[in-house]
Amino acid sequence: VGKRVFTSDRLYEGGAPPGVVMGLSWTAMGGASLYIEVQSVRHKSSGGGTLTSTGQMGSVMEESTRIAHTFARRKLEDFQADNAFFDTHDLHMHVPEGSIPKEGPSAGVTMTTALLSLALNRSVRADVAMTGEISLTGKVLPVGGIKEKTIAARRSGVTCLIFPHGNKKDFEELPGYLKEGLEVHFATVYNDVFDCAFAEESGGGGGSGGFLAPKE
Amino acid sequence: VGKRVFTSDRLYEGGAPPGVVMGLSWTAMGGASLYIEVQSVRHKSSGGGTLTSTGQMGSVMEESTRIAHTFARRKLEDFQADNAFFDTHDLHMHVPEGSIPKEGPSAGVTMTTALLSLALNRSVRADVAMTGEISLTGKVLPVGGIKEKTIAARRSGVTCLIFPHGNKKDFEELPGYLKEGLEVHFATVYNDVFDCAFAEESGGGGGSGGFLAPKE
Amino acid sequence: VGKRVFTSDRLYEGGAPPGVVMGLSWTAMGGASLYIEVQSVRHKSSGGGTLTSTGQMGSVMEESTRIAHTFARRKLEDFQADNAFFDTHDLHMHVPEGSIPKEGPSAGVTMTTALLSLALNRSVRADVAMTGEISLTGKVLPVGGIKEKTIAARRSGVTCLIFPHGNKKDFEELPGYLKEGLEVHFATVYNDVFDCAFAEESGGGGGSGGFLAPKE
Repeated sequence: VGKRVFTSDRLYEGGAPPGVVMGLSWTAMGGASLYIEVQSVRHKSSGGGTLTSTGQMGSVMEESTRIAHTFARRKLEDFQADNAFFDTHDLHMHVPEGSIPKEGPSAGVTMTTALLSLALNRSVRADVAMTGEISLTGKVLPVGGIKEKTIAARRSGVTCLIFPHGNKKDFEELPGYLKEGLEVHFATVYNDVFDCAFAEESGGGGGSGGFLAPKE
Repeated sequence: VGKRVFTSDRLYEGGAPPGVVMGLSWTAMGGASLYIEVQSVRHKSSGGGTLTSTGQMGSVMEESTRIAHTFARRKLEDFQADNAFFDTHDLHMHVPEGSIPKEGPSAGVTMTTALLSLALNRSVRADVAMTGEISLTGKVLPVGGIKEKTIAARRSGVTCLIFPHGNKKDFEELPGYLKEGLEVHFATVYNDVFDCAFAEESGGGGGSGGFLAPKE
Repeated sequence: VGKRVFTSDRLYEGGAPPGVVMGLSWTAMGGASLYIEVQSVRHKSSGGGTLTSTGQMGSVMEESTRIAHTFARRKLEDFQADNAFFDTHDLHMHVPEGSIPKEGPSAGVTMTTALLSLALNRSVRADVAMTGEISLTGKVLPVGGIKEKTIAARRSGVTCLIFPHGNKKDFEELPGYLKEGLEVHFATVYNDVFDCAFAEESGGGGGSGGFLAPKE
């Protein structure tokens, strides 16, 4: 199924820590699974609240980090109004591998999820990967390369995918052997992504015990 | 009526939340309706009052965000002298879709309206779209592409348009089938935009109940 | 064994001070050993915590300095939770020789080690050199030029090497005369690097007296 562009697609095999989420990217050389890593450092004095980004991101992807930051800050207010994490910590978002240029807005939902994962100190499901542009108010916009991204996800052992609702038709048109065995969620707004990414994997009782995303 | 440049022109079909307003843009590929989204995050400690912008804006459009910010802050003082919203919140203005470069000053009135909408926590009319450069004191200046923008607005289901007064002749020269069924307002100063955008849609009693823009 | 690209490979012969660590680089002209130097200045008032970098680093290497900075800050919290070194000092990272352009992510582990060495005020082993990209959470990623780097290390009198685990096969395939007499460690996560670099060289009792890197 093609040559791997990135060699780090199994960097967190078996489950990533809070702040790390697998995204799916798409280049001329094919699809690839790419982790978004966020690290936080508590600011010792007053101040904090900055966001640094690395990983040879182009200007559109760089802007995505800031959209994700603003939206995640806003979203956290809905969940935990008195959680000051984003104001007291300096954040740093990185996309391995550091020498390969990356571009595009399609990591928006992944970046947002990585930031919330860290702020809430909760890992996402171990088997999930996602792609989608996010608007500043949490709308999930369609992206390109659904076929290539699905292939890349399968190659990385992912079984649960989150795609924008606007890409539902693209996915449904894929050949059956590519869709087989995948659990796919189509998101219209970011809360759809959140509910899936932070769901209990095979949880008893169905649904999260006391941790539901508020409706947008 | 031409190919769509943007696919997000129905992102907020049925009405946008406070902070989101539909603008009209014009490129070599035709007109397009484009939302301006503003999100706010309350600063936990002292500080706040910043404005971040994303959406691949060119330098002229970037400057428009700052003109809109200054004018909206000034305008809010007239409405609600003790409203500290702009001083206690970090703001972020975004224009989906994040990967398409955008340029020009014609979103000035739209940006101003989006900022005031958020500060006042009031949505604009669901059926309105607007275009116009704004000066730092609130004068509304004419823009290009009135025909293309009217076509784009119709395509997006918009029925109420706000254009600069300096473009009145451009609109009147359009063929009748393009003008048919549209409610069009021509603005000389920003208050003209405000009165229309925040008017009750089919309000009883004519005019706003207790919320009138002061005269400039 | 080839021409030297850099002439500074014996700059700290006999052992480097805290903040200086030998890395290994690889260019079209061959491998080279290159010191990473970090200097700190205590900030007199509140503030501080900045990182400046010099040495004609390309953008990827420049980003590596920031990844190393964030990770080292985070790591220090695990070791010494109340050590405010990184918040009270302005840091400067330099790679001699200042006129030769350098690029790539493979100095990541070296930079991280130099920063921690300074913050902990502990020198690394005098006989060690290292190479490896670091991710923001401390994963060690494979790099290129293992053969050239091994040759360069031998030329500089280094006897202990730290390579990424992903390069183990590359090293094992080298001819025996290049591997002879070298102590080589393969790192999966940064703690593997730390444990080796700060180990007592021929220490009595085996292992560090009260200074163990916590597990990641």
